[in-house]
Amino acid sequence: MSEAALTLEGWYALHDFRAMDWNAWKSLSPAERKQAEDEFLSFIQEWSDIEDKKQGSTALYSIIGQKADFVMMHLRESLEEINELETAFNKTTLAQFTIPMYSYVSVVELSNYMAQGDGDPMQNPEIIARLKPTLPKANHICFYPMNKRREGNDNWYMLSMEERRGMMRSHGMIGRQYAGKVKQIITGSVGFDDWEWGVTLFADDALQFKKLVYEMRFDEVSARFGEFGEFFVGNLLDQNKMSKMLEI
Amino acid sequence: MSEAALTLEGWYALHDFRAMDWNAWKSLSPAERKQAEDEFLSFIQEWSDIEDKKQGSTALYSIIGQKADFVMMHLRESLEEINELETAFNKTTLAQFTIPMYSYVSVVELSNYMAQGDGDPMQNPEIIARLKPTLPKANHICFYPMNKRREGNDNWYMLSMEERRGMMRSHGMIGRQYAGKVKQIITGSVGFDDWEWGVTLFADDALQFKKLVYEMRFDEVSARFGEFGEFFVGNLLDQNKMSKMLEI
Amino acid sequence: MSEAALTLEGWYALHDFRAMDWNAWKSLSPAERKQAEDEFLSFIQEWSDIEDKKQGSTALYSIIGQKADFVMMHLRESLEEINELETAFNKTTLAQFTIPMYSYVSVVELSNYMAQGDGDPMQNPEIIARLKPTLPKANHICFYPMNKRREGNDNWYMLSMEERRGMMRSHGMIGRQYAGKVKQIITGSVGFDDWEWGVTLFADDALQFKKLVYEMRFDEVSARFGEFGEFFVGNLLDQNKMSKMLEI
Amino acid sequence: MSEAALTLEGWYALHDFRAMDWNAWKSLSPAERKQAEDEFLSFIQEWSDIEDKKQGSTALYSIIGQKADFVMMHLRESLEEINELETAFNKTTLAQFTIPMYSYVSVVELSNYMAQGDGDPMQNPEIIARLKPTLPKANHICFYPMNKRREGNDNWYMLSMEERRGMMRSHGMIGRQYAGKVKQIITGSVGFDDWEWGVTLFADDALQFKKLVYEMRFDEVSARFGEFGEFFVGNLLDQNKMSKMLEI
Amino acid sequence: MSEAALTLEGWYALHDFRAMDWNAWKSLSPAERKQAEDEFLSFIQEWSDIEDKKQGSTALYSIIGQKADFVMMHLRESLEEINELETAFNKTTLAQFTIPMYSYVSVVELSNYMAQGDGDPMQNPEIIARLKPTLPKANHICFYPMNKRREGNDNWYMLSMEERRGMMRSHGMIGRQYAGKVKQIITGSVGFDDWEWGVTLFADDALQFKKLVYEMRFDEVSARFGEFGEFFVGNLLDQNKMSKMLEI
Repeated sequence: MSEAALTLEGWYALHDFRAMDWNAWKSLSPAERKQAEDEFLSFIQEWSDIEDKKQGSTALYSIIGQKADFVMMHLRESLEEINELETAFNKTTLAQFTIPMYSYVSVVELSNYMAQGDGDPMQNPEIIARLKPTLPKANHICFYPMNKRREGNDNWYMLSMEERRGMMRSHGMIGRQYAGKVKQIITGSVGFDDWEWGVTLFADDALQFKKLVYEMRFDEVSARFGEFGEFFVGNLLDQNKMSKMLEI
Repeated sequence: MSEAALTLEGWYALHDFRAMDWNAWKSLSPAERKQAEDEFLSFIQEWSDIEDKKQGSTALYSIIGQKADFVMMHLRESLEEINELETAFNKTTLAQFTIPMYSYVSVVELSNYMAQGDGDPMQNPEIIARLKPTLPKANHICFYPMNKRREGNDNWYMLSMEERRGMMRSHGMIGRQYAGKVKQIITGSVGFDDWEWGVTLFADDALQFKKLVYEMRFDEVSARFGEFGEFFVGNLLDQNKMSKMLEI
Repeated sequence: MSEAALTLEGWYALHDFRAMDWNAWKSLSPAERKQAEDEFLSFIQEWSDIEDKKQGSTALYSIIGQKADFVMMHLRESLEEINELETAFNKTTLAQFTIPMYSYVSVVELSNYMAQGDGDPMQNPEIIARLKPTLPKANHICFYPMNKRREGNDNWYMLSMEERRGMMRSHGMIGRQYAGKVKQIITGSVGFDDWEWGVTLFADDALQFKKLVYEMRFDEVSARFGEFGEFFVGNLLDQNKMSKMLEI
Repeated sequence: MSEAALTLEGWYALHDFRAMDWNAWKSLSPAERKQAEDEFLSFIQEWSDIEDKKQGSTALYSIIGQKADFVMMHLRESLEEINELETAFNKTTLAQFTIPMYSYVSVVELSNYMAQGDGDPMQNPEIIARLKPTLPKANHICFYPMNKRREGNDNWYMLSMEERRGMMRSHGMIGRQYAGKVKQIITGSVGFDDWEWGVTLFADDALQFKKLVYEMRFDEVSARFGEFGEFFVGNLLDQNKMSKMLEI
Repeated sequence: MSEAALTLEGWYALHDFRAMDWNAWKSLSPAERKQAEDEFLSFIQEWSDIEDKKQGSTALYSIIGQKADFVMMHLRESLEEINELETAFNKTTLAQFTIPMYSYVSVVELSNYMAQGDGDPMQNPEIIARLKPTLPKANHICFYPMNKRREGNDNWYMLSMEERRGMMRSHGMIGRQYAGKVKQIITGSVGFDDWEWGVTLFADDALQFKKLVYEMRFDEVSARFGEFGEFFVGNLLDQNKMSKMLEI
């Protein structure tokens, strides 16, 4: 039996991708649309308050193409909070004019392939900050789920800890070259959703997503062992842009 | 020909995943919603009575994300009872406001890879208790279907009984480390549904699902032979929480 | 080029899986539902008359879980009759309240891997009875489509006739152990539908499906060469049970 | 680099599979249905006129099972004509009562693996007749798309021209045994649709589809290299049968 | 770690495939349809103005078969412009009568496997012209997404730069034989959509798509490493043809 890497877990995450039902939305009167928007903005305010209190974080981005019109990415302390959040949204007027397109359930995670300091990592403020992060307000988001492959000679889970650590180190080094350009949040979803990890990237220049993911694909850990799900890319939705998107 | 492990079967199981049609549900008057909820609560009461009489068991959990809003997991003595149950639910008012998302048909099973005592196991109260269990009221549920792989050199069904027994033993040892943290119910679905087994986990701390499934993935039996379907995770829905979920 | 096994074909088969549109069905008046049911029962009577005249056979079973509410399995002399049958059903009132879920087109088949007597098999009454069978009224049905694999070293169609015959013989021996418990009807669908064969099993004890299919999976012909589609399991629907199912 | 076989192309093909929306169709008055049917029959007449003028050909068949109720297979000189044809159909009243189920875009093709006479094949009347064929009015149709596999050691496109030619010759010999029983039209769809070829078979006895496709499956070119999509089978729809199908 | 090829990126691309909801469209009055069409034509005019100003480019083509009725392919400087464009379209009256069928997000790309001149390529007008192209008005379009395979011994990302360069050169040579017949625009989608590249071909003779893609399939880079998604093929829609398509 191969040794599993220890992982540290922080906040639970829900990525909630929605398309607008434009026909139904357009059929509302301007007053009804205004009311729906105001109700949604008050939710955004609530989420923002929670973020200010360091009890969670929420990011709101548009999504390019037909896969969705926008994504709400929520981080919270517990699955109960996550579930309440999505049910509360489902009961809003705006939600009546959205179509569920995709969602992802996971938990922010750090794996210990990298060397770490002494002592209890959960007492380390830097680690806590990474496990319970405030989501960036970068111009762009990129999300995709992934697995480590288990096929024939390319079976990640049959490798020794040493082999895996070596490959993850090289992988991490590519990531480091993008420091300041791309902010990466890894969430683990083994036991929670259909892939093993979710990767959420934030950048001011969307091309950096392409450059980072492409460069990593030549790294052995991705080339031989990476299996990727759907990719979603989008633009930051501040209150102003959200209003503009909803405006008919 | 490789020898099949003997299996013992208990109650039949139906996992019935439903999304709420929130738009339609919101269009009802409060009185209509109350009536629908009361009718559903009387079903829950019936299921609870059956559980008290040890004639079956039912678990009710919310599901996180867009895959479903809730799951009803039913255990019953026969496929006839299972079928009556689902048809009865389909005729309720609440069911009119739900959308079928996924279901799974299986039967609680124990496989005899492990050493067992003498005598007829079906006379052994401990075994009967495992084959006809009362489902736990843990905070969280996790469900996923799985196969044993049959691909090239990774063909579980071409292994000898000895090889399979050895791997299952190591697999069971990981499970044992989670005793008291995670309760696992294995249901067999060969001949009943699209995967060979269903795995239903119950835990008070949802992180234990992730830790257990991740650790097992490094075990040869999962690493080389495990094929996994969709994962669902959720929170316990007692009567109070069900009411709260349905409240507009 | 490897030699194909000769096959004998009998009646054409259509498996027609339907879900009920319960919301629409409930919206009918009792008199309308009664009329729809009566119309359907008169079809069942027609099918029964054809069965009595040995011109075909029809089985009606409920299906457990969300895959369907019931299946109509029809055997008839020609694709023309099969097509008329389904179109006639599609025009009934009950059909308006059903949702097509899955269907399968095939033809009852015997393959000659096994030794057979002299003379023209199509003159052999025992063989004719197997090619043009009256479907059993067992308590339970199980249906699944399957292929013989063609992958790398596991390519059924590259094996010699001898190799295939040897494996099929061992396979048949498992089946024979279930004589009296499980009745099996093999239908060929090469050129007719997406898999190469359909397997329809009938048993009074549904657990026998699981035991048979599981035991066979360790047989080389299944372990290395079997590829399986969706599985459906259900309960016999006589006129009484059909009425009960449709009753609101 | 392996040498591609030269191919000759003739008419473009569109296979257009449609289900009837029986509920909506039944909701029409008999006069409305009559009008819709008459409009469609006038299209059939137009297509027949084009066929008489050797400017294209159209076949109309019912489809067995839930995959579709009927297929219109059109051959025309250009993609512009094909597109006009489908758009014209989409605007008819009958089309309003159909549901698009599947379609396939391809072009009639002859590949030159076989020895051919001297001179410009496009001046050879026999070859022109095969590239621009009048579709048969056989009792039955069978359609499926297919690829040549490119997997590990079974990579058709890495074989030499000689190896491919040898296998195609043996493949063609099986086909020749069905001369007079099965008429085969191969259409190429590389660059046009999701598979590399479409195969359309016509026969008076539908069992010949099964026998031909099954026998070919043991041929190395199919056994090792054939990948098959969905199969559709159906019955000839002349004007009389079309009317009968549409009659409520 | 294998070295990634450097890539140059130009305009972002959105391929937006739409089917017409013919039933709803036909239910409009001629005046309403006229208004919807006029509104759409004014969008086309806007896109044309942007093209004239070299700030982007848009191509409009019908699509053959049921996959879509038409595609809008947009090139723009930023994801923000792309997103505004699609949201603006979604709010038009015509959009209300379309059904989203497929979309693709990518960015025009040149990879440097080929030798390039000295100096900063982004100052090279010829390269800029290829990265920010005005889309051709050819008679036909062909679109498909693709990956480079990572399977067993056929793992593109484990090859050395030299091996990849050699194969890409041979690949490019086939493309060059189609100069003047087929115009090819490669867009990269790593990090943006589900495949690694989108390929958009333009030609006056649609057969050239088939000949080009088929010939390339025998090239090692495609034969061993190409994985292809859905193929779409269509005809140029100028304003006249668009009006004709929308005319009832």
